[in-house]
Amino acid sequence: MQTVDTILSGGVVVTMDKQFEIIHDGAVAIKGDKIVAVGSKEDVLAAYASDNVVDCAGKYVMPGLVNAHTHVPMTLLRGLADDLRLDVWLIGYVMPVERQFVTPEFCRLGTQIACAEMIRSGITSFADMYYFESEIAQATADAGLRGVLGQSILKFPSPDADTYEDSLAYTRRFIERWKGHPLITPAVAPHAPYTNTDETMRLCTDLAVEYDVPLLTHIAETGSEVDDSIEEFGLRVVERVDGSGVQMFRAKTLCAHCVHIKPFEMRIIHDRGATVAHCPSSNLKLASGIAPVAQMLKHDVTVGIGTDGPSSNNDLDMFTEIHLAAILAKTQANDPTTLPARQALLMATRQGAEALFMGDKTGSLETGKLADVIVLDANVIHNIPQFDRDADAVYSRIVYASKSTDVRHVICNGQWLMRDRELLTLDEATLIEEARDYAVQVDTFMRAREESVLSKLVAVSELERAESYEVQVKARIADEVVIDKLLKHPDVQIIHFNHYRQYDSYFLFDNEGKERVRYREDDKIDEQGEVESVRSRLTYSVPTTEREFDQAVLLFRSRFIADATRPLRFYREYFQPLHERQLEKDRRRWHILYQGVLYYLNLDHLLQPKVDGLFIELKSRTYSMKDAEIKAGRLQEMLALLDIQPEDIIHRHYIEMVKDAPVV
Amino acid sequence: MQTVDTILSGGVVVTMDKQFEIIHDGAVAIKGDKIVAVGSKEDVLAAYASDNVVDCAGKYVMPGLVNAHTHVPMTLLRGLADDLRLDVWLIGYVMPVERQFVTPEFCRLGTQIACAEMIRSGITSFADMYYFESEIAQATADAGLRGVLGQSILKFPSPDADTYEDSLAYTRRFIERWKGHPLITPAVAPHAPYTNTDETMRLCTDLAVEYDVPLLTHIAETGSEVDDSIEEFGLRVVERVDGSGVQMFRAKTLCAHCVHIKPFEMRIIHDRGATVAHCPSSNLKLASGIAPVAQMLKHDVTVGIGTDGPSSNNDLDMFTEIHLAAILAKTQANDPTTLPARQALLMATRQGAEALFMGDKTGSLETGKLADVIVLDANVIHNIPQFDRDADAVYSRIVYASKSTDVRHVICNGQWLMRDRELLTLDEATLIEEARDYAVQVDTFMRAREESVLSKLVAVSELERAESYEVQVKARIADEVVIDKLLKHPDVQIIHFNHYRQYDSYFLFDNEGKERVRYREDDKIDEQGEVESVRSRLTYSVPTTEREFDQAVLLFRSRFIADATRPLRFYREYFQPLHERQLEKDRRRWHILYQGVLYYLNLDHLLQPKVDGLFIELKSRTYSMKDAEIKAGRLQEMLALLDIQPEDIIHRHYIEMVKDAPVV
Repeated sequence: MQTVDTILSGGVVVTMDKQFEIIHDGAVAIKGDKIVAVGSKEDVLAAYASDNVVDCAGKYVMPGLVNAHTHVPMTLLRGLADDLRLDVWLIGYVMPVERQFVTPEFCRLGTQIACAEMIRSGITSFADMYYFESEIAQATADAGLRGVLGQSILKFPSPDADTYEDSLAYTRRFIERWKGHPLITPAVAPHAPYTNTDETMRLCTDLAVEYDVPLLTHIAETGSEVDDSIEEFGLRVVERVDGSGVQMFRAKTLCAHCVHIKPFEMRIIHDRGATVAHCPSSNLKLASGIAPVAQMLKHDVTVGIGTDGPSSNNDLDMFTEIHLAAILAKTQANDPTTLPARQALLMATRQGAEALFMGDKTGSLETGKLADVIVLDANVIHNIPQFDRDADAVYSRIVYASKSTDVRHVICNGQWLMRDRELLTLDEATLIEEARDYAVQVDTFMRAREESVLSKLVAVSELERAESYEVQVKARIADEVVIDKLLKHPDVQIIHFNHYRQYDSYFLFDNEGKERVRYREDDKIDEQGEVESVRSRLTYSVPTTEREFDQAVLLFRSRFIADATRPLRFYREYFQPLHERQLEKDRRRWHILYQGVLYYLNLDHLLQPKVDGLFIELKSRTYSMKDAEIKAGRLQEMLALLDIQPEDIIHRHYIEMVKDAPVV
Repeated sequence: MQTVDTILSGGVVVTMDKQFEIIHDGAVAIKGDKIVAVGSKEDVLAAYASDNVVDCAGKYVMPGLVNAHTHVPMTLLRGLADDLRLDVWLIGYVMPVERQFVTPEFCRLGTQIACAEMIRSGITSFADMYYFESEIAQATADAGLRGVLGQSILKFPSPDADTYEDSLAYTRRFIERWKGHPLITPAVAPHAPYTNTDETMRLCTDLAVEYDVPLLTHIAETGSEVDDSIEEFGLRVVERVDGSGVQMFRAKTLCAHCVHIKPFEMRIIHDRGATVAHCPSSNLKLASGIAPVAQMLKHDVTVGIGTDGPSSNNDLDMFTEIHLAAILAKTQANDPTTLPARQALLMATRQGAEALFMGDKTGSLETGKLADVIVLDANVIHNIPQFDRDADAVYSRIVYASKSTDVRHVICNGQWLMRDRELLTLDEATLIEEARDYAVQVDTFMRAREESVLSKLVAVSELERAESYEVQVKARIADEVVIDKLLKHPDVQIIHFNHYRQYDSYFLFDNEGKERVRYREDDKIDEQGEVESVRSRLTYSVPTTEREFDQAVLLFRSRFIADATRPLRFYREYFQPLHERQLEKDRRRWHILYQGVLYYLNLDHLLQPKVDGLFIELKSRTYSMKDAEIKAGRLQEMLALLDIQPEDIIHRHYIEMVKDAPVV
């Protein structure tokens, strides 16, 4: 008679093993972090003894659930903003709050709240993608849950990194810190192909391959993502990342969403050994669409089920997701026999573990597997009667009628995390208090920018985020022949020229002058001096200088640009600026390659208000701080070619130069 | 200072009134069955006193939810059979079990279980459609819930009525018994247009109008229902029932589902003052489709939300349905701003009450309305933090993150039904025990018919249920000239003639010979004696004589007919009959009108096995027992015209006559 730590005795043992064995009046014996026996109660109790024999009669004993995709710290953003378009929600609400509040402490608290909620709903393993992932790892390990935790990498600055280079460096340290931990699997998480360049995707993949850790990313979540990919790369999303520029599937890749993929993309995913996380609630709520799950399963793709982040769901309830996955697939296929309950539960257990590349360790109740086990109340008023004629009725009861609140006990890695609905590793009352404090801070911040210019802009426009940085230098010149020295230089190649009359209206607000919106009408002038075409654009910027290179070149943070589809009057009424200033200028603009790299040269006359003299601007944009430094050096070189003297350099924007510009 | 029965004090009062007022730190005072005050805690406590002041701080106080469509006794069929095609599920499982088990006692117990589950999930009003509705009314009133209860009427026999005439008579008594009850609103529930004739729909409508009670029915749940309607009537479903043959919308009509309706049908529903119950889970699970809810709301249709029966859902959780209604509409409209949380909650409260034609009485917290109130825990780990910047965030938290298990108190009609999650009018432990007993009985019954012929037939065929009754008489005649007396009689008009060679294979089973399946190949013979066309059909029947009229005419119960799309060999292997018998005959068949009513006359030669002589059969089919009696009389008259003597009458089927038929 072997002594073990715990015996879960009696009840219906739903193993989710390859034979889908269901043991009525069964038992599971646990020693250390492992399951040492699964069988009939009689057999197990004959062979094993324990001080901790837990009566599970009238209950289901089953594998802990696997949440294949989430962003756990976003519990702290739950219900912040709902029923909004994706861009408004993301750019107008989530991103500004993240920029302000996402710190290591935020991630610690948000993860703890998520872990409490996940334990309560029977989740023992999850895949995460967020920032400060090392904090998330610590909080997850402390809570006792199993996590595949992906550090997010974007081409834009993020709350934990100013540049993607920083982000990659952080990720490397994160992997080295956590690799080999019994509960934590570190991972690399390029946020999505559309928020990365091929280069950053490739660097992420290299890193994942180097350390043999999973790569997590969002793939084809929306139709417009696919349209954009086709327009920009001529390829659908899976094709693009599979292509030679990235070859993402060299890494063990878990693709979240895959709402808009074609059968040939399913074949690529399958053939490369990548996996998918299906997030039905989030996809419906954000109006992203219905993922073709049944078709993916027919292509033998390994598909898990995820809650997505609590900011777009809005909870971490896998019972809701399993149920929804099962019923949604039926209507999508126009066939109620599609994705039956057993298969849906499989996706949330054994197949979910496979999707996280740990199918050998967890996801089913089998001798030798890690002890990730939950116990569910079966005799509840919302789940009776219990018919036994059909063995699959057990799956049907779990998938179609059980609630997350039926979960009574949770064991992960052999450790009890919840017993009789009492959490053993987390203090809910404290977490609720701490969350309350955060909510007050966020509410205060949001109220302060209630009339935020950007959020109002976002609400009415299709915004496009320009490159993260703009380096530029501006100078007064004596005569326009000066620029010939640059334009005719052997290192310079002119690739494009335009002549514009520009009418700018600047909206200024009473927030320390930081934010402004420019409405620009660009009249394109042809060779005969006639207006050839007109376009209007809105630019939102916070024109604070980030950095100055060598007293000449300025570095600015990114701007948001939108087509102005409505008249100036509309925007004036809508934004209700405190002040408005007008500026009219004549601009000749050259796109030039200097040593093969793109720069812009503007030659400007300020017409209204009238400012005598001629001005030039030299500009370039980039995503990378390192690249910004290099380009600042090149701009210096071009200044030298133009014989520009330090005293001719101007550090202000035009609108700041023209003090007497008419104020409306 | 007025004394009241209960004051719910503190917490966030979500009134759902026309102004959508939300009162932070509010209170609700209840006296008798009515709400007497809704306001700030300070104001209410200044004006009202009670021995029962309930602290609701940190909770939501809101109207009880309205479940706009369900079949409550079907709790007892929950999980009986899932992931099946609608016909297999309904004809193969639900109907046979209903036929066997649905009794007044079944309906009482099923309703009690449903009421316990509904109270737990915050439902205080519901609309039901089932059988023995008077028992359901009694159980509902005893549980203290508010019900609009529709007695089901079909053209087929049902568990509580052999004929629709019986059903209508029962419904009239049911209405008279319950009309005016404070909790119960009796209603007439023609099951659906496709399970009724225009005549039965019209009679139902007449009854509803006569008593001014609601009419409940299923409308356009599936695409095939619409296709069938167009094929049979040349009209979509709403058009058909709106047409002069029925004029259903004369009654206050609540239409369940409306998954497949067009804008012009929405306009009809709106203009006639009818309402809709949207059942998203059930529609997805049965692969019926996604109802165009946002479009209906744009057409100002009053739409409530329903769980549907627990046999197709599989629970009675309105929180699941509200959430799903909100997120499903977004993806259907490809717009995440569609059906925001507030509107979804409205559909489950005030607008739900309007859908049940009791918007003046319940559905919102307003002075003078009936006291149907629930209290929800707000400070739970799955629903923090709570942002207050946006007033609508309260709706978002309730719709997107609250669970039914957050419901703490339930008051209906001023009576406490649940307090601190303890049910006060129902004993759950006893109900669970009683349900267990039923499950054992049902399992036993189902196991016994595990190899049921009908269920197997259903599993492979598109079954068509023939009329409920067949009256027929069979006789031996000396010469075929005999039939001329009938065919040439002035009361008879021949409308159709066919000549067949019929090859029948009877599958016989070891269940007291009651069930059999006939595979018939009908070779149609042209005037030259050549085979013109061939069709094969399966007929399932239980050929027990129901009744005998005047020692000649026999009455049989209904049969199920299916096109045999596979070869005889397939069916032989599939059904694995114990015995098989073959019968070959030559049949000439006349469709005749006798006194304007359709009958069939067969003139048969039995060829293999060979039986000398000639036989005639006279037949008719009907849905009504009363009509069967009338037609039996007509058949007697025709026998007299043919000079058939009593000794020539044959009471057996051909297959029983040919004792020496080859047995395979």
